[in-house]
Formats: sequence, C-alpha cells, structure tokens
Amino acid sequence: MKIAVLGGDGYCGWATALYLSAKGHSVAILDNFLRRQWDHELGAQTLTPIRPLADRINVWRELTGNSIDVFVGDVTDYDFLASAIREIEPEAAIHFAEQRSAPYSMIDRKHAVFTQVNNVVGTLNLLFAVREFVPDCHLIKLGTMGEYGTPNIDIEEGYITIEHNGRKDRLPYPKQPGSFYHLSKVHDSHNIMFACKIWGLRATELNQGVVYGTTTGETAMDEALINRFDYDEVFGTVLNRMCVQAVIGHPLTVYGKGGQTRGFLDIRDTVRCLEIAALNPAARGECRVYNQFTEQFRVSELAELVKTAATKMGLSVEIEHLPNPRVEAEEHYYNAKHSKLIDLGLKSHPLSLSLLDALLDVALKYRDRIDPSLILPRVNWRRTSNERRVKEDHLRVEFSKP
Amino acid sequence: MKIAVLGGDGYCGWATALYLSAKGHSVAILDNFLRRQWDHELGAQTLTPIRPLADRINVWRELTGNSIDVFVGDVTDYDFLASAIREIEPEAAIHFAEQRSAPYSMIDRKHAVFTQVNNVVGTLNLLFAVREFVPDCHLIKLGTMGEYGTPNIDIEEGYITIEHNGRKDRLPYPKQPGSFYHLSKVHDSHNIMFACKIWGLRATELNQGVVYGTTTGETAMDEALINRFDYDEVFGTVLNRMCVQAVIGHPLTVYGKGGQTRGFLDIRDTVRCLEIAALNPAARGECRVYNQFTEQFRVSELAELVKTAATKMGLSVEIEHLPNPRVEAEEHYYNAKHSKLIDLGLKSHPLSLSLLDALLDVALKYRDRIDPSLILPRVNWRRTSNERRVKEDHLRVEFSKP
Repeated sequence: MKIAVLGGDGYCGWATALYLSAKGHSVAILDNFLRRQWDHELGAQTLTPIRPLADRINVWRELTGNSIDVFVGDVTDYDFLASAIREIEPEAAIHFAEQRSAPYSMIDRKHAVFTQVNNVVGTLNLLFAVREFVPDCHLIKLGTMGEYGTPNIDIEEGYITIEHNGRKDRLPYPKQPGSFYHLSKVHDSHNIMFACKIWGLRATELNQGVVYGTTTGETAMDEALINRFDYDEVFGTVLNRMCVQAVIGHPLTVYGKGGQTRGFLDIRDTVRCLEIAALNPAARGECRVYNQFTEQFRVSELAELVKTAATKMGLSVEIEHLPNPRVEAEEHYYNAKHSKLIDLGLKSHPLSLSLLDALLDVALKYRDRIDPSLILPRVNWRRTSNERRVKEDHLRVEFSKP
Repeated sequence: MKIAVLGGDGYCGWATALYLSAKGHSVAILDNFLRRQWDHELGAQTLTPIRPLADRINVWRELTGNSIDVFVGDVTDYDFLASAIREIEPEAAIHFAEQRSAPYSMIDRKHAVFTQVNNVVGTLNLLFAVREFVPDCHLIKLGTMGEYGTPNIDIEEGYITIEHNGRKDRLPYPKQPGSFYHLSKVHDSHNIMFACKIWGLRATELNQGVVYGTTTGETAMDEALINRFDYDEVFGTVLNRMCVQAVIGHPLTVYGKGGQTRGFLDIRDTVRCLEIAALNPAARGECRVYNQFTEQFRVSELAELVKTAATKMGLSVEIEHLPNPRVEAEEHYYNAKHSKLIDLGLKSHPLSLSLLDALLDVALKYRDRIDPSLILPRVNWRRTSNERRVKEDHLRVEFSKP
C-alpha cells in the first residue's frame, strides 16, 4: 500500500513510517523539520540523540533494503503539498504534521495563533489536495483524547446518540478541549467531517491518548534509528518525564491533586493502530473516529508506578505535588470507550514494570544529556504571556514569532 | 456605556453602531473596510448606495450631536487591535468583524483558508486583548444559527443536558456547520468558551439567524445613513435577494426542494438584541449562548410570501427551483429554541406583508442599480474551485489571494 506519512520525522511519525515500511508498504515522508526547530527555540533537546532524517533513511535502507521517499516542505504551503501528493499518489495519507504540544500553544498569543493557523491550514490544505488529486485516498488524521475534555458522562468514539424531548439523533460528541492546541484539533475534526460530507472523502480520525515509550521493533534495530524521547515541560509527556526525574533523583512532579485521568498507550501500539486504520479504510463519505489508547490512569497512579519500578532498580524516589499550571479538573469522572481498534485486531502492550524498567534504562543510558532546568512547568494557563529561559537563568529566551 | 463595535461599517455593524449611539452609549467603530473590498473583488455592489464611513459618521454627528470614534485597521493585526482596545477601554466589545458569507468561503481553497484564518485569528486576538487590557469587558460575539446544522432533535441555546448510560452532564451543543464559513464560527465558539474558563472572561455568543431588511429608525433619518442591501449570490441573504428578483421580473429562485428551514429576524431586532446583551452582561467566567432569531421559515414559504406581496403590488412573479449548489438537507426536522433574548425583553418585529412591501419598495427605488448577472448561484459546494465572472461573461475575474 502506498502511504504518505506527513510529519514522519517526529516522535510518532518516525516510528510509524518505519513500522509501515517494515510491513512492506511503500512509505513516503513529508516533513519540514519544524519539530527540530522548536527544540532550538526552547533550548531543549530529545534525551535520545536522534540523527538527521537523511541519515536515518539511509541506515534504514542499508539494513532492510526498503526505501522511504522524503519530501521536504511545509503542509501549510499548498504548492508543496499538492506537488508531493500528486507525485506520491498515496492510498492512505497519515497526518501527524501538526504542532502537538499543549504548553507550547499556551506560551503566549503568538504561539496560540501559530498553533491554530498551522494545524488548521495544514489540514485544510490536505483535504483540498486529497479531493483534487487522490479523491479515493484514505485520510488518517491524528486527533487527541484531549478533544473531549472530562465530561461527566462516558466518552464515546466520536459520535453520541442523544435522546432529547422525545426525539433522537446521532451527533458529533461534544468537545471541551483544554488548550489552544487541543482546540486546534477540534477545529480540524469539524473541518474533516464537513469535507467528507460535501466531497465524499474517506477519513479516520484517531483520537490518541498520551503516548509513552521510545523503542519499537524497528527503531531498536540500530542506534541510528533511535526515536525521540522528550522530557521537557513543553513537549515531554508525563510518563517519559517522570522516568527522567527518577533517574536524576528529582521528585516526580504531579500537577495539582493528580486525580486527572487520561488514556495512555505504548508507542508500539500507536504504530499498530496506524496500520490497522490503513488496512481497513473508511468508506467514501465516511468520517470515522476511533479512540486510540489502551489503558486509563490517574496521574498520581503513574507516579506510584514509576516510583515502584525505580525503587526496585535501587533509585530513591519521592513524589511531589506542584500547583497546577493548567486549568483542569483534578478529580473527575472518566470512562472513555476504546473498542473499535480492538475490534479490528489491536493487541495492546499494557503498561508493565518491565516496560518502565526499559524506559528507566533509556533515561539512565542518556543521563548525561538530561538538563534538569527543562523539567519544571513554566507555562501557566492563567497567564497570556509566559517567559521561558534556557539553561542558565540569566540568559533569557524571548519568544518571537515562531 | 462604552461600546466598541468591531466591523461597524458592515451591514449589521452599521445599524448596531447607530442604534447604540442613539440610545446614548459611547460608541467606537473598528473596521478595515474589507467588506467594501469584497464587493470590488466580486464585481458586486450593495443595491443601496452607501456612503464612505467618514461621511456617514459626519452626517450622524450633524443630525444627532453624537460622535462615533473610528479606528481603521484589521483585527487580525494585534498591534492595531490592542492599541484601539487600550484607547477605547470598552465595557462591551461587539464583534462583527468577520468574513460572514458561506458562498465566499466555498469559492476555492484560498477563500476557505482566508475565511478560517481571518475569523479565528481575529477572535483569538480579541480574546487576548480583552484579557490583557480590559478583563472586565463583556465580549459579545456574533455566531450563527448555521453552527448547529439541522439535527433531528430540538436545538437548544448553546448547551444541552445529556443523559447517557445513567449519568448526566450539561455539555456544549454538538455542531454540524455547513460551510467553511460556518465552521469558522464553530472554531470561534470553542475558543471563546475556553478563554472564559481559563481567564474568567465574560462572553455572550449570539447565534444569529438570517437577517432581512435594511431600514432601522436610525438609518432612515437621512439618505447618507442608508445601510447595505446585498442581493448577490455571495453576500445576499435569501429574502433580500428574492425581493430584487421580484422587482426585475426574474423567477424567485429556491435552491433544491426549498424545505430548508432556518431562523430569521428583522435587522431592527438585531440591533435590539445587541443592546439587550450589552445591558445584561455575562458573569465573569461565563460563556452564554443566545439564539438570536424571531421566526422559523422554510425557504419555499418565504418565496410564497414574497410572491404574495409582490403580486399585490402588481408585479408578476414566478417561483423556480434550481439544483441546490449547497450540500444540505432539503427536508428536515427543525425546532430551535430562542427564548433567552425574549426573556430579557426582546419584542420582535415578525415578518409581515408591510415589511415585505417596504423591502420591495427599496428594491424598486434602486432598481437601476440591480445587476441581474449577480443573482444566480455559481459557487457549488461540491467543487473545490468555482469560477465567477463580472457583469460581462467574457470578462473573467480570477480569484487571487484575498
């Protein structure tokens, strides 16, 4: 199957591109390396020393004999996107090419506007390019479980049947996103649903939970294929960050009460979900929504799990509750459905002590690359402008137009 | 009360600015005259010969002694918006300053992207400016009834209480907008709701129906104060367009079956709704939603009403059904609640034959300005690119970046 992976140099994108290539699909990556640029902007870097994309691709070809085509450009540039789509003629287009950090979108007005314009325009462009050049192509779009917020009723997969005043309809599930980033994904969702309706496109939205882990079967084949591992306050996800804190003897930081419950999944399941979606395309005109996570955890539970695993390894670990930089419910009902990908054959990797051991091992291996000043939260949802600093506190980084 | 009217040179904005000024409020208009520029782009013009804003304002001051301040600039330019908001220090900010035509947003990709970026960024900028400079200011934002689409259940005012699997919550009403323009308003709604939550802003969203009419008590005071009357396929609203068709002996065109039901209101009620909202501000942190229309009609009913009124005036009128250029249900359930503005004191002007007479009189008075080539629909929802022409068919207008 010919598959375009937009944002294929990023965390989920890279793992997905390699997995699909290993499975025999013809993979093309589109990327503009903006994710790498944000590291420079923030004075941060991935814990794992990732290689330039050209090197990664060459090593992959040497190891496996599989070529991955690369198209360097920005999906918000329609001329670029259209020419790439025309050349690739994908049967499935997997769209990871968005700004994906909630704190990044909350730094200040410019970052909020950038995030929404970048994500919304990129997705609009992709919808138009698919309609114009490959109308039968299956659009697979990464959404987020954060689109739903934390309603006091069960979260369904994209749609909910509502009975109201004696009548009934199946309607888009109401969204209550919690950052300008999460809002951008909600905007995308509405745009995609509409495009499927008017143009008969086929789309699957994967509302993904919080991803953890760094190693997949493919990235483990060679050090040059290693994937990102972000632990900084802006792009780091909670479990990766806690493993880094455990390794450097810092308390595991829980924002607020820690009763925030979210869906989580191993990156090895992310890549499988993407292939399952690609192999089971939506019908023409259909906009499916799958909730892509395998387990729910409270943040405080995760901290306890990391503490247990780290203690077994001889590390001394404390848990500390910080004032919550976000505006969110810290104790709430949460029951999100996630059966559709399982029905299509997903066998999940539940979070285990051995996986936590492996994560902690990665953090230990690259311990010298850890910058402790990047971990604590500085972006506060209540402020319209948040200053951040690089390593040394006297050296301020001004956030200019991204 | 100090009130900023963003987009105060447009159709609803101008009528609102004058009404509020007449009621003794201190009014400031922000506008960049983009609405006038779109007329040039489309080769169209308002049926009524409107004057430049500076003239309008001068005549208003001469007639009433009331000054209206004008700030010329683009709300997507934050420096402009922030400086204007700081100078005005509004207690209420009424936001009409958006691209408001569904067909305009469906012309092609550039118009879709322009509409969403223009509307979303303008509203984001306003949220940030209010939070930074006038956090107690009441944001009054024009939404549209078109955000809801045509669900098979009653449409509530912004929120709906859902019982599901034995639990209950009050959630944002699910949205199914029908154009890239309507989508932009849905994006705005989500952004505003979030800003109220994290920053404690006060906001009222007015989900307005289709407005008809051109005359208000204020605009009738002098020919120089006359308001827009759009009848072209892109910016014209259905009732105004049908009155023009009746006057030039063209069939009244109904798209598809004509069973499309929508909420409607007289522009004299629009201006009252705005004052009611301003005088009854939302609480800090509250994001209220009011459905702003007074009556529901099927499009085919409207055609019959116009035919009746026109026939009484001696005009000969036919009704013609065209293939629907839009993708929308042409027969559907529709029952939209709209009691909140009435509860706050709105006394509506229901559609009457005498109002239709007055509208037809306007069309007759300016009959020489009618360009019949502008009336029939050329923007088709099913295409990604729609060519439009100015008066003479051989003279093509290329739609370049707006």
